[in-house]
Amino acid sequence: MKKISTSILGLSLCFAANAQSETKRPNIILFMVDDMGWQDTSVPFYIEKTHYNETFETPNMERLAARGMMFTQAYASSISSPTRCSLLTGANAARHCVTNWTLEKDKTTDSYSDVLDFPSWNVNGICQTPSIPKTFCAKSFVQILKDNGYHTIHCGKAHFGAIDTPGENPIHFGFEVNIAGHAAGGPASYLGTDNFGNRIDGKKSSLFAIPGLEKYYGKDIFLTEALTIEAIAALDKAKKYDEPFFLYMAHYAIHVPINKDNRFYQKYIDKGLSPKEAAYAALIEGMDKSLGDIMSWLEDNDELDNTVIIFMSDNGGLSCEPSCRDGELHTQNAPLNSGKGSAYEGGIRVPMIVSWQNHVTPQSKCDDYVVIEDFYPTILEIAGIEKYDVPQEIDGISFMPLLNGRETMNYPERQLVWNCPNLWGGRGPGIGPSCTIRRGDWKLVYYYESGRKELFNISEDIGETMDMSEDNPSTVKKMSKRLGTYLRKVGAQRPVFKENHKPRPWPDEL
Amino acid sequence: MKKISTSILGLSLCFAANAQSETKRPNIILFMVDDMGWQDTSVPFYIEKTHYNETFETPNMERLAARGMMFTQAYASSISSPTRCSLLTGANAARHCVTNWTLEKDKTTDSYSDVLDFPSWNVNGICQTPSIPKTFCAKSFVQILKDNGYHTIHCGKAHFGAIDTPGENPIHFGFEVNIAGHAAGGPASYLGTDNFGNRIDGKKSSLFAIPGLEKYYGKDIFLTEALTIEAIAALDKAKKYDEPFFLYMAHYAIHVPINKDNRFYQKYIDKGLSPKEAAYAALIEGMDKSLGDIMSWLEDNDELDNTVIIFMSDNGGLSCEPSCRDGELHTQNAPLNSGKGSAYEGGIRVPMIVSWQNHVTPQSKCDDYVVIEDFYPTILEIAGIEKYDVPQEIDGISFMPLLNGRETMNYPERQLVWNCPNLWGGRGPGIGPSCTIRRGDWKLVYYYESGRKELFNISEDIGETMDMSEDNPSTVKKMSKRLGTYLRKVGAQRPVFKENHKPRPWPDEL
Repeated sequence: MKKISTSILGLSLCFAANAQSETKRPNIILFMVDDMGWQDTSVPFYIEKTHYNETFETPNMERLAARGMMFTQAYASSISSPTRCSLLTGANAARHCVTNWTLEKDKTTDSYSDVLDFPSWNVNGICQTPSIPKTFCAKSFVQILKDNGYHTIHCGKAHFGAIDTPGENPIHFGFEVNIAGHAAGGPASYLGTDNFGNRIDGKKSSLFAIPGLEKYYGKDIFLTEALTIEAIAALDKAKKYDEPFFLYMAHYAIHVPINKDNRFYQKYIDKGLSPKEAAYAALIEGMDKSLGDIMSWLEDNDELDNTVIIFMSDNGGLSCEPSCRDGELHTQNAPLNSGKGSAYEGGIRVPMIVSWQNHVTPQSKCDDYVVIEDFYPTILEIAGIEKYDVPQEIDGISFMPLLNGRETMNYPERQLVWNCPNLWGGRGPGIGPSCTIRRGDWKLVYYYESGRKELFNISEDIGETMDMSEDNPSTVKKMSKRLGTYLRKVGAQRPVFKENHKPRPWPDEL
Repeated sequence: MKKISTSILGLSLCFAANAQSETKRPNIILFMVDDMGWQDTSVPFYIEKTHYNETFETPNMERLAARGMMFTQAYASSISSPTRCSLLTGANAARHCVTNWTLEKDKTTDSYSDVLDFPSWNVNGICQTPSIPKTFCAKSFVQILKDNGYHTIHCGKAHFGAIDTPGENPIHFGFEVNIAGHAAGGPASYLGTDNFGNRIDGKKSSLFAIPGLEKYYGKDIFLTEALTIEAIAALDKAKKYDEPFFLYMAHYAIHVPINKDNRFYQKYIDKGLSPKEAAYAALIEGMDKSLGDIMSWLEDNDELDNTVIIFMSDNGGLSCEPSCRDGELHTQNAPLNSGKGSAYEGGIRVPMIVSWQNHVTPQSKCDDYVVIEDFYPTILEIAGIEKYDVPQEIDGISFMPLLNGRETMNYPERQLVWNCPNLWGGRGPGIGPSCTIRRGDWKLVYYYESGRKELFNISEDIGETMDMSEDNPSTVKKMSKRLGTYLRKVGAQRPVFKENHKPRPWPDEL
């Protein structure tokens, strides 16, 4: 347990905040997109414009980038639950052990392997209550924001805890408003005409049926739009409160199913895209319109200058499912290799933009790397909350120095670690049980099943096509040591060979 | 600010609760009825059965009383907001200054007086955020329960904060589930066929329209029943969580309008009651059925023995509105004088029962007095939470010693104080701007407008018909001194004469 310092929460809620009232605290919007790849935008995060940047239209992301800072090396985990649990807790997935996606209580979602048994990971997700089995207990930054006088709004996908555990409910983590968030990590349907997956008798057709949007049932409205309307209504209310607000605008888009958003679909057909690709592009543009609507609300309500907007995705774009995307498999995030579920850049590098009037330089770009657990201390620092006590260790580091324009925060000495001792289910390059370390230009991927190691120089080989491990044994050794040491230190898990029931070696044991 | 002790909340959420896990913490249900008078039940709280006890049928209150302890001198404030704000904060109304009923932001609900101007009371209610104007800032006991691993459910009437302030939302105070609670203190309609006061286009017909029960619109269901069904669904969910639960079952019943609950109405007509009285009796019995349904759920789910049930009302029965009740005005709480809004016992003495297997003696009765602000420390003590830091002063005292069967806690030395420097609006005995002190058998009421003082011996004259002030000048003086001293100490408010803009004297200044 890390005691960051004594808390202002319990001792003097009133007095502490009164002391803060001299400076107006900013509103904060975290605009989180689901499964959005690094290239699923017209904003060029690579050194040059790609085919995808030319294809997809995200004018509001461009508008946001013009106001703020693009992060070209922003990282998440390769799938949703590890990312979102790191976001809320500030802990690395190797520590919180929510390393695959969560849904039902006490049930693993690991795919079957002939060779490996997977560890007993935290299949129930995260929770603020310590008594819940198979969860990581932590206090969320949202709770701390609320305890410090922020009005906290959740809109969209939660996916923090399994069904029938307290963490299924975003309110548990300190949100005061929950719009359509629950345990599931994807939508049964984006279509109001499908009741978003709910049956007309009010029951769910699937565990992925969207809750709480009854008023749109049967209507010709896309989920992304319905969420935006509801979020704006919540902002209208927030505006009346004498508090700053935190809006977690967590779109279900652009997760499968790739339903057609008819507001934008035909345009992409007319541009020559295949039906599948046009639907995908429309899903993206619908999300982008939501961003624009929210920015316009801020403008119209004179709140834009006092609102920090953070745009983020929770993992790379899905590239291993031919039923969802056209084109050669695993190229949908090019120049990055592979996609969602992969240890390669296509799985973990995501679009990120931050705008903050008078703090972040407009039209700026940051090439330093940041990772999802950094959001926790950063957002609290943005809110002016310097002191908080939490039961968990915070692995993230505030990237406020980067926002302030200092060229480098910790690169190249800082190491980033991923641990995925699970079998997600998709198949493709870099997908499977592995652990990974990035430090400076180097990135080492270790595969638990085979014991194979790959070493890439990310600066020179962003596509991870050239394994340099044979030519750099000492780097491999040093990186393996760092990785193994970290994993053991934080209590990371690893798979076991079915054959002999022995745990697979740590990367520095091979 | 009172520091009760160092907090376990921030420092070690996980570890503290792990330490507690050896003893199973009880579930807690606070079953709060609105506007229910002391005699609105078949359970006799007076020394003898009254006409009202014979008329009204509350078999489930009898069932609860058979399991637990009746409190014959349980007190609340004389109207809703002061009571509910004292409940949530543990502070006396003289301190929190929410001394009339709240509804709209920054708007007083004081009636007009030719003679008095009323103080600038906290018209926006209570709030956990210090920046909200015209609110009392406090941390609620519900927040502390949640922070210590209780699953917290709100069902029914909230009435903690004004519309467009954070306190309008029960979630703000630490509830994780909110069923139908908002700013308003009464229902527009109890009838599903009326959509509980909502228009079919989804808009509200009045500020009192009940939120969140869309699924019952147009159905022949009474609000009390709909709330009970929803509460039980929330309990079904709570049962799956590995946490104890706190259910605040706060019925809108038996507040006006006295809609007919057809499940019970005809029975009372057949017993010879007038239509108005039959509707009132049916409203009571519908509430009682809800209590029974919840007790049966506990039994069926093997949770009854591990659940503390506290039954309470928020003020006396309405007795000044001939449109709602038949019979002579101000006798509806007999043998108590007057009713809701009055400083007399009819306004403030309410039915209260507590059951707790193996802790509270079944079929027992406690004649010591307790008051609504005592619930805060008591409930936290029941939950095993001994240490908490809160910004507000807690005026309440835990009545755990009474539950444990010790004959007396603090009576007759303890003094209870009420302060109502406002004009609620109803007319009748004891209704109007006043402050009151009870100590032992004596009760002094001081009227701010006239400066008149009344002294009653409650043990000998429960109906407050004999003013003893002339015969006991030294008692009047001592009681006035105690009352004035307390009011000044806690920062109580008082009205001002319009004529000369002078505040009315404190009771010990006359």
